[in-house]
Amino acid sequence: MKDNGKISKAVIKRLPRYRRYLEELMKKDIDRISSNDLSKLIGYTASQIRQDLNNFGGFGQQGYGYNIKGLYTQIGNILGLDQEYKMIIVGCGNLGQALANYTHYYKAGFIVCGMFDINPRLIGLRINDIEVMDSNTLEAYLEENQIDIGIICTNKDSAQEIANKLVLGRVKGIWNFAPMDLDVGDNIALENVHLSDSLHSLAYHINHME
Amino acid sequence: MKDNGKISKAVIKRLPRYRRYLEELMKKDIDRISSNDLSKLIGYTASQIRQDLNNFGGFGQQGYGYNIKGLYTQIGNILGLDQEYKMIIVGCGNLGQALANYTHYYKAGFIVCGMFDINPRLIGLRINDIEVMDSNTLEAYLEENQIDIGIICTNKDSAQEIANKLVLGRVKGIWNFAPMDLDVGDNIALENVHLSDSLHSLAYHINHME
Repeated sequence: MKDNGKISKAVIKRLPRYRRYLEELMKKDIDRISSNDLSKLIGYTASQIRQDLNNFGGFGQQGYGYNIKGLYTQIGNILGLDQEYKMIIVGCGNLGQALANYTHYYKAGFIVCGMFDINPRLIGLRINDIEVMDSNTLEAYLEENQIDIGIICTNKDSAQEIANKLVLGRVKGIWNFAPMDLDVGDNIALENVHLSDSLHSLAYHINHME
Repeated sequence: MKDNGKISKAVIKRLPRYRRYLEELMKKDIDRISSNDLSKLIGYTASQIRQDLNNFGGFGQQGYGYNIKGLYTQIGNILGLDQEYKMIIVGCGNLGQALANYTHYYKAGFIVCGMFDINPRLIGLRINDIEVMDSNTLEAYLEENQIDIGIICTNKDSAQEIANKLVLGRVKGIWNFAPMDLDVGDNIALENVHLSDSLHSLAYHINHME
């Protein structure tokens, strides 16, 4: 079952969340779920759920609900989680190290192949059994290795320069944790995690609770 | 200048981003900017920008553009960044440690007062000069200290239990990094950073670039 390439960004953003809930249901050995029950769990309306999942050709049978395992697998396939991704992490402070470990634990299929830093005290260390290399060797490394995803955990000042090297090094996507917006052109997928934006939103909501 | 409490979530989500760009302009000693020039920088349309900022009573003068410093300050005030927030971090793995340091560096006003973990090897350590306490003392700590924000960096299995303790302990907001959705009731602000959702979105976009 393939999507038609016209799925809205908003729907795509919701898919990982659907998948997380389906995973929990599978762990509880539940086979099927109606859009109404899924709605109670996940918080979207049942009609929203039906509309979202119809985008992909409809996994549900009227009156029988959704086959949880089938839906889980197909959402995974749509997201591309049936493939492996080779990743490198640039910037090996606590956050880079956290991601190296996080990835190892949670993300089957997302494989950290290398880590890079400019700090001589980190270069040569092994983090989660991955060697930290000198950032100056990044370009050469990318020439010799086909990497899918570059993760940027550097500070703001070097993030764009690293992004440029990743683009030249033919990565397909960049996962950016530096607190700035990167210019990577139109051919590279870019996903930002702006922690300070998230914290500032939280501050707003704290001051505007009913 | 106060907002009327009816600002849409979408606008609020954009405010931290506006503020980041204004901060960069201030660093370059630029005083004023038109909505057109701001549009080129930030990527929203000029009319979107005018509409967003009009929500707060209008910071710009027709023909003169926006006063950058004034706008920066007022967006900060709207977000509540003119106040201090006392925070604790529960779960002191790499991610918790990264946040302790990150916060220290970037977030004037967001003060980590305490860290908690169940791991005996971490309890008693000082991370960024903050002592790691036993998670079993969390409830007592919250009874004695008024904490504004609880940051959850535990694994999925203990996240809801920690959230319950934070709610009972009268925090105003929860910043959740555990890969699950928490139930915290309607009186607590909740901001989730679901790293796996973000990585899965990236995978999708890698497979669906033009």
